[in-house]
Amino acid sequence: MSDVNRRIVLASRPHGEPTPGHFRVERGAVPVPRDGEVLLRNRYLSLDPYMRGRMSAAKSYAKPVEINDVMVGATVAEVAASRNPDFAVGDTVLAYGGWQDFSVSNGQGLRRLDPAAAPVTTSLGVLGMPGMTAYTGLLTIGAPKPGETVVVAAATGPVGSLVGQIAKLKGARAVGIAGGADKCRFLTEELGFDAAVDHRSADLPAALAAACPDGIDVYFENVGGAVFDAVLPLLNDFARVPVCGLVAHYNMTELPPGPDRIPALMRATLSRRLTLRGFIVWDFAEQEPAFLRDVSGWLREGRIRYREDVVEGLESAPEAFIGLLKGRNFGKLVVKL
Amino acid sequence: MSDVNRRIVLASRPHGEPTPGHFRVERGAVPVPRDGEVLLRNRYLSLDPYMRGRMSAAKSYAKPVEINDVMVGATVAEVAASRNPDFAVGDTVLAYGGWQDFSVSNGQGLRRLDPAAAPVTTSLGVLGMPGMTAYTGLLTIGAPKPGETVVVAAATGPVGSLVGQIAKLKGARAVGIAGGADKCRFLTEELGFDAAVDHRSADLPAALAAACPDGIDVYFENVGGAVFDAVLPLLNDFARVPVCGLVAHYNMTELPPGPDRIPALMRATLSRRLTLRGFIVWDFAEQEPAFLRDVSGWLREGRIRYREDVVEGLESAPEAFIGLLKGRNFGKLVVKL
Repeated sequence: MSDVNRRIVLASRPHGEPTPGHFRVERGAVPVPRDGEVLLRNRYLSLDPYMRGRMSAAKSYAKPVEINDVMVGATVAEVAASRNPDFAVGDTVLAYGGWQDFSVSNGQGLRRLDPAAAPVTTSLGVLGMPGMTAYTGLLTIGAPKPGETVVVAAATGPVGSLVGQIAKLKGARAVGIAGGADKCRFLTEELGFDAAVDHRSADLPAALAAACPDGIDVYFENVGGAVFDAVLPLLNDFARVPVCGLVAHYNMTELPPGPDRIPALMRATLSRRLTLRGFIVWDFAEQEPAFLRDVSGWLREGRIRYREDVVEGLESAPEAFIGLLKGRNFGKLVVKL
Repeated sequence: MSDVNRRIVLASRPHGEPTPGHFRVERGAVPVPRDGEVLLRNRYLSLDPYMRGRMSAAKSYAKPVEINDVMVGATVAEVAASRNPDFAVGDTVLAYGGWQDFSVSNGQGLRRLDPAAAPVTTSLGVLGMPGMTAYTGLLTIGAPKPGETVVVAAATGPVGSLVGQIAKLKGARAVGIAGGADKCRFLTEELGFDAAVDHRSADLPAALAAACPDGIDVYFENVGGAVFDAVLPLLNDFARVPVCGLVAHYNMTELPPGPDRIPALMRATLSRRLTLRGFIVWDFAEQEPAFLRDVSGWLREGRIRYREDVVEGLESAPEAFIGLLKGRNFGKLVVKL
C-alpha cells in the first residue's frame, strides 16, 4: 500500500470561473485510524456541480471548504484498515472521503456497498445523491401526472437523465435539454425522452416551444440562466418548479444587466399560480429507503439506464470539475483513483 | 323604484395609474328579468385591487372587462323582482352585480345572506372573497406553525387583517406592514398583531428586520415592490410565500431598472429552500364551507375583528378605487349605493 496520501486542497477562492490554480495537490502521510475508526482508500471520486458552491465563502445551505482544506466529495472506498467492529478490511463503502487517496472515518454515514448487486459507481450517480435528488424533487415537488410535460436541462447528467426517465415511468412526456447533437440523440434514442432540445440552438425559446406544444407542467430547475428564460413563458397554469441547482449562475460574478425582471416573474407566479420551491436532497432524507428500493428495481428491470463519464487519476479532478461546470462531461462524472 | 340604471363602464384602458377618465357613468333602463331570472338592486359594491387587472387587456387568470362594458365586482343586493322560484322579493344576496344600480341574474352563484347572522357587508370582506383568500392562502400554503413569524402587508385591509389574526389564532407571531401611524396603531392595539411596520419608514428594511428578530417563516404576498425587497433577505430556511396579489406592480408601465435580480431570487429560493406559490381564492373553492364555519365562529367569539371603509354613492366608486390602489382606504372598501 502506498504510504503517501495525495490531497487536492482549495488553494484560493475563485471569483467567476475556477481555474487549475485554485486547486493545489499536496502530499502527506497516510492517516492512521484511531480506535473506532477505519482507514479508507478512495477508489472513485464523484464530481458534482454543488462543489462550486463550497469553493465560495457565500452563505449557503452548507459550510464552505476552507482555504488549504481538502475539497469535499463523495467517494467509493475500500476499507484498508479497521479499528471499527462494523467494518472489515476489504469492505467497499460509499463515503464522503473528499479529493484524496485516503481518508479516515468513524463509520458514521458510511454505506456498505455490495459490488455484486450493482456496479459500485452507481452509488455516486443513479443510486446515489444525484439519483435521489431527481427522485425526491421530481416526485415530491414536481408530482407529474400522466400526460403532463416535464422539462429538465443538463438532461444527460445523472440528475437530469433520471428526472426524464422517472417522468416517463409515471406516464408524463419528457423533454430534455442538453448541449450538442450527440447528447440530444442519446436522450431520445437511448433514454427514451420524447424530445430533446439543444441549448446551443440559435433560437432556444422557439426550439423549446416547438418541443412542448402543450406547454410545461413541471420544470426541474438545475441550471437557471437562458434555459429558465426560455421555460418561463411556456409554464402552464399550476406548473411546479423544483429548484435544486443553478449551474449557469455558479460562476456569475455580478447580476446580469436590467431591467429587473422580478416583477415579471412574480406576476407569472400569481397569474399562472406557479409553485417554485428550492430543495436539497437531504431535506427528503426519510425517502432514502423508498428511493433505493424503487430505482434499484427499475435498474434491474432495465427500465432505467445511465451513463458514466470516467476520468483517470486524482490529479485530473480539477480539470474535469472545471469542464463539468461547462457541460463538457457526458454522463455522470467520476474520477477513478 | 327608480326606473334608471346607472352603470359605470370602462371607458378606456389605463396605461399606468387609472384616472377618473378611464371610467364613464351611463344611464339606461332598468333591465327586465326573464323567466328563471331575478332583478337585483345592488346595495353595496365591493372594491378590490384585482379589478385593476380586469381593466387591462393582458392575459391573466380572468378575462378583462371589455371597453364600454360595466366594471365587474361583488355586491350585496336585494331581490327587487323574481321569476326564479329559489328567490323571493326582498331576499338579500351576495351577487356579482358589478358597478351599477341594478343587475339581472339567473340565480347561479348567488348566496343568500341572513342579515340577522352578520352584517351583510361582511360577505364582501371578512366572510367573503378577501377573507377566504386570507384563510386559504395562509393555512394551505403558508401553514404557519406555533412560534413562527408571519408577515403581511396591506395589513389593515380585509385580506391582511385576517391573515395576521388567523396567524395569531394558530400560535404564530404576526407582523403587519401598513402605511402611517394610525394604521400601525390599529394593527397592534385593535387587531392584536405583535408588531407593525410603517412602509413609509425612512429605512423599511431595517424597520422590518427589527420587527422580525427571528426572521420570517411565512410572507403572505399581496403587494410586491419595496416590501418584497425588504422581506426577501429575512426569509428563513423553508419559508413559504403564498402570492395572491402584487398591488405595488399593478400600475407599473415598465420593469424597474436593473440589474436583473432573478438570479438572486432563484439563488435564495435554492439555498434557503423557499416556496413561492401563486394562488387565487377559487383554486381552493372546496374550502368554502370550512372557511365560512371557522371564520363565522371566530367572529361570533370575538376572536376576529374587522374594519370597513364605507364610501357613499355609486358615482364615488372610481375615485375610491383609485385611492385603494394607493392605500388611501382604511379597512375593507365598500361603496354604499
